[in-house]
Amino acid sequence: MATDYKTLAGQEFDRGAFESLLRRKVFLWQSFEPYGATKGLFDYGPPLETLESEVISIWRDHFIRSEKMMALKCSMLTPYQVLKTSGHVDKFADFMCKDPKTGEILRTDHLIKDVIETRLKGDREARGENVSDEPEDPKKKKKASKVAKTAVKLDESVKKEYEHLLATLDDCTGEDMGALIKKHDIRNPISGNEVEPPVSVNLMFQTQIGASGKEPAFLRPETAQGQFLSFQKLLEYSDGQLPFASASIGYSFRNELSPRSGLLRVREFLMAEIEHFVDPQSGKEHPKFHTVKDVKLPLLSRDVQQAGGSTPVNVAIGEAVSTKLVDNETLGFFIVRIHQFMQKIGIDMGKLRFRQHMANEMAHYAADCWDCELLTSYGWVECVGCADRSAYDLSVHMKATGVPLQVREPLKEPKRVEEFVAQLDKKKSGPKFKKDAGKVQAALDALTQDVKEKLSISMQQDGKVEIEVPDMGKVDLEKDIVTIQKEVRTETMREYIPNVIEPSFGIGRILYSLMEHVYWTREGDAARSVMSFKPTVAPVKVLVVPLQKDVRFADLLQTLEHRLDDDQLSFKVDQSGVSIGKRYSRNDELGIPFGITIDYQSLEDNTFTLRDRDTCKQVRAGLDQILEAVSKMVKGKEAWSEVQKRLPAFEGKEEEKE
Amino acid sequence: MATDYKTLAGQEFDRGAFESLLRRKVFLWQSFEPYGATKGLFDYGPPLETLESEVISIWRDHFIRSEKMMALKCSMLTPYQVLKTSGHVDKFADFMCKDPKTGEILRTDHLIKDVIETRLKGDREARGENVSDEPEDPKKKKKASKVAKTAVKLDESVKKEYEHLLATLDDCTGEDMGALIKKHDIRNPISGNEVEPPVSVNLMFQTQIGASGKEPAFLRPETAQGQFLSFQKLLEYSDGQLPFASASIGYSFRNELSPRSGLLRVREFLMAEIEHFVDPQSGKEHPKFHTVKDVKLPLLSRDVQQAGGSTPVNVAIGEAVSTKLVDNETLGFFIVRIHQFMQKIGIDMGKLRFRQHMANEMAHYAADCWDCELLTSYGWVECVGCADRSAYDLSVHMKATGVPLQVREPLKEPKRVEEFVAQLDKKKSGPKFKKDAGKVQAALDALTQDVKEKLSISMQQDGKVEIEVPDMGKVDLEKDIVTIQKEVRTETMREYIPNVIEPSFGIGRILYSLMEHVYWTREGDAARSVMSFKPTVAPVKVLVVPLQKDVRFADLLQTLEHRLDDDQLSFKVDQSGVSIGKRYSRNDELGIPFGITIDYQSLEDNTFTLRDRDTCKQVRAGLDQILEAVSKMVKGKEAWSEVQKRLPAFEGKEEEKE
Repeated sequence: MATDYKTLAGQEFDRGAFESLLRRKVFLWQSFEPYGATKGLFDYGPPLETLESEVISIWRDHFIRSEKMMALKCSMLTPYQVLKTSGHVDKFADFMCKDPKTGEILRTDHLIKDVIETRLKGDREARGENVSDEPEDPKKKKKASKVAKTAVKLDESVKKEYEHLLATLDDCTGEDMGALIKKHDIRNPISGNEVEPPVSVNLMFQTQIGASGKEPAFLRPETAQGQFLSFQKLLEYSDGQLPFASASIGYSFRNELSPRSGLLRVREFLMAEIEHFVDPQSGKEHPKFHTVKDVKLPLLSRDVQQAGGSTPVNVAIGEAVSTKLVDNETLGFFIVRIHQFMQKIGIDMGKLRFRQHMANEMAHYAADCWDCELLTSYGWVECVGCADRSAYDLSVHMKATGVPLQVREPLKEPKRVEEFVAQLDKKKSGPKFKKDAGKVQAALDALTQDVKEKLSISMQQDGKVEIEVPDMGKVDLEKDIVTIQKEVRTETMREYIPNVIEPSFGIGRILYSLMEHVYWTREGDAARSVMSFKPTVAPVKVLVVPLQKDVRFADLLQTLEHRLDDDQLSFKVDQSGVSIGKRYSRNDELGIPFGITIDYQSLEDNTFTLRDRDTCKQVRAGLDQILEAVSKMVKGKEAWSEVQKRLPAFEGKEEEKE
Repeated sequence: MATDYKTLAGQEFDRGAFESLLRRKVFLWQSFEPYGATKGLFDYGPPLETLESEVISIWRDHFIRSEKMMALKCSMLTPYQVLKTSGHVDKFADFMCKDPKTGEILRTDHLIKDVIETRLKGDREARGENVSDEPEDPKKKKKASKVAKTAVKLDESVKKEYEHLLATLDDCTGEDMGALIKKHDIRNPISGNEVEPPVSVNLMFQTQIGASGKEPAFLRPETAQGQFLSFQKLLEYSDGQLPFASASIGYSFRNELSPRSGLLRVREFLMAEIEHFVDPQSGKEHPKFHTVKDVKLPLLSRDVQQAGGSTPVNVAIGEAVSTKLVDNETLGFFIVRIHQFMQKIGIDMGKLRFRQHMANEMAHYAADCWDCELLTSYGWVECVGCADRSAYDLSVHMKATGVPLQVREPLKEPKRVEEFVAQLDKKKSGPKFKKDAGKVQAALDALTQDVKEKLSISMQQDGKVEIEVPDMGKVDLEKDIVTIQKEVRTETMREYIPNVIEPSFGIGRILYSLMEHVYWTREGDAARSVMSFKPTVAPVKVLVVPLQKDVRFADLLQTLEHRLDDDQLSFKVDQSGVSIGKRYSRNDELGIPFGITIDYQSLEDNTFTLRDRDTCKQVRAGLDQILEAVSKMVKGKEAWSEVQKRLPAFEGKEEEKE
């Protein structure tokens, strides 16, 4: 498979070999293998579980501790009504098409995109264009080959129509997509069968709380809603002061119709979500923005994308905010912090970009949105979304529950407010409307200032007005039953619903991208693969290798083990019979950054060699010095290049030891 | 409320005041409050979320890193068939009774226990016995009072029957309990209504994977099953060597019928489960047992409980294993490691015991089981179960799937095996049985050696034998179609299913108990409460208090903040207008262990005071010394008493600062 995607050493990336390493070293596998494995669910073995834990530790330190965020843990099980209000019951859905003959269920947008892209590619082939460099999914290739329509030339007009279709697919309704399927004779690419019209399917897992049958619930599709509903608690904890941010690391669920792409699209996933609450009148400034304003970032703007471009531009965030490319300081600050986080965990920064959402990608209420995307062998993958959710969520929950999810703060100066008020006379309206009096008053309250002003004029002229009351229809109100007039009052408090800026991290996608980014093979030996995890995140920190099985090494080994334990350094002892070189090699696949060898010289002078995984270089020193160096490197406080300068080199090559 | 339960300072424990503190400082609350809150689901606010994270870090270090366990993360969504095999579909259920008039659903065993205990207590009251010191749940009291039957004397025979009933309730089937309810006229204690007969209700949350309707699934009720199903991967990772342990920190779910007791019985909970796999022929010895054998533990044995006792005996674990009080070394080793873990996180060790399960509490396959129980104001609470699950789980999954969840290892010496073999002649049996030939051979294979030997004799005598074949009934086999004879072969491999020892931690229960254990109030001032979290687990490590709002402190404050950040110490700055004493007091409720004050002397000589939360004592020193001391104490490497000796005392009292 030829793709644009290269390893960190500039080699062709061989996904087959990479996946074989992940299997061999039990990084991950599909869950419930003995029962035939379940699609879209994955188990993490020791290396990946520990990698995740290290990445989460860094996330906690980088965001929660360092930015003084309020850590929250909210429930996964979520009552129906919460997600009805948030809009998920109605809108968190995908369209699916069923292949009536095979029973297979296909996501409609994926189906259309796959088929049309295959046709366009076939056209390019037929015209003799070179398509071998285009990244492609090996599974797609296999599927497409069964109904091979490759290398068919298209009319220029059809080609244009297809290109337009792909560019506008995200805006299509289910009906639109149904029409496209008919018009372009789009079929299941595997079976060649026609498919049934698109049907909307909600993507939440549904269940019941308790045994009464009265508490339908879902597994949450995002961790955000629990944070919004905790707003009053957070406000209390912050002594009523804004801005503040909550942060939650937890699982969300999405009942994918036909999961694929391994860890990139799964049904159960860990997210780390921040909700940063700001006063919308503050201009969304950030007190620490000045500390990051000169940081340059690869930004791919909406305008560049609209013009067909895909190359990000390196811009200082200060400039990006001042030119309004990025909407506000808070959004800009988080984009920088995300960038720094990715660097800390060892992402290849040449494979990272921030892409602005197109207008049709954003929720209707969102002001601006930037995704942090990482390049993988599957193409660019959205790993962090950084959106401005405005006041949407707090507003709808407040409206649905009547609980004030808002801030009340004293105005600096009392404010004189002049406005039209329409007020029923209670004594007279009571007998007339009885229990409906409240409805009428509510209808009056809901009128805009404009309408109230007009009604006050009608009242003066006609002695009565007509208004529309929900459930009651048109209602006449006479002069003696209602007063509509301009009133003046003094406000001393300001009430407002905060806006929310939300950086949302998909941890599984970040881990997968990271694993691809650190994978490479030693020059001249494609079988010797290496996972170059940074020492800070590497699942195991130290490999201990006694030169060979020899009882004389036992005491030194025990001392070394105790010392590593005292320093809380995770380590693995490899005492198997094979050569040291082989033992290093096979542990390079686990990404263990440092190796300590016990050899015969150790018995004489208590020195050990310390080996760096990436360069294969070694130094030799006493135990105190070696452990100090390892501890510092694992904490990210020293680099190997510095250690190599400090400690004497050891020239014995790995090959010689074999 | 008068109970035996005392705070660490020996005071009466006031649960109302304690719960008020948890609410005020937003440790936790019922989830979805704006929507009326959902029973059995809790959100954790910043102090408790961070406490949990610190406790989990220690757990990871104490068990996973230090014992080289294999960390695993398995899916929560679990296919029906997995939990059918494990027995959960059929047996993970509670009996419930419905109050037909109120619709209330009551757990049958709780209902019976509550009502009978109330009657027995009434009897003691009627006899003039003092019952006020008996611990009681305030909610129970409230309920019971509505149908007050207290202080009614019982016949001696009835009393005996009731006592027997309580002692044997755990062994009752649903039918048994239904009979008890009728016989003893047990009613809903709140409404006084008769209840419907007990019905079994499964306690798992059910859902569907995908949109096909063909993949019913549950949320897992324990994290163990995923670990068992990963056995082959783990074996691979350990190069085929036993013993090894996997460890998983993850969520499980239990659809409680009527949750109560706050965090002690919830529907969604974090567990940390270890599965330690051993060769059953090894005697379950543990290589590190000698390092812990002298550790003394409070053990409450089955025998003591059977004799009506409840006082644990302090026994060295070496002695407990050698006398077979504790079944084996591995179980003993884990009991010690659990004990050490509890000490590390700051559990009050006077409120901890290990209780052995009674025979009727254990699963039928379990060899021995010890719970680590912590004393709380609700009584003794099971926080860790430490069970020997034998080979049960691996066996049933292997049988259900045909996937070998077992170990194959070369025998040290090849073994000569002499045994009777019954083998169909394929040529002759094929035409006779056609597709059923396999069934017949399987029936032959399933015969015991004894039966085969008898059949070989019958064959010699009668020239034919008769066997029973599933689905086919009795089948005659003639001499020419089957050979039954003694054969000799040499075995070189041994196959066995490992046994599993499982320490299983309920993290929420541990956190709740810990919060109760560290809560106390300052002498003479019940309103000044303190949460004495150990510095290692405290959610926030340092409180920074500038003496008062004064711009001259700004530079020092900034320096201090940068230095704390560099050392990755979490801190909170309290600059509010109230006195220093008040600021310390209200942060004592968050359990911040150390306070650093910036005062006017700091401006002159760059020294600061460091205050210890528990003793309110202070020392004064330069920033380097103060930060070094705090860092060491937070890592558990130095105690305040040592710091107090090293650094000069500061005598300015908190009160003077007010």
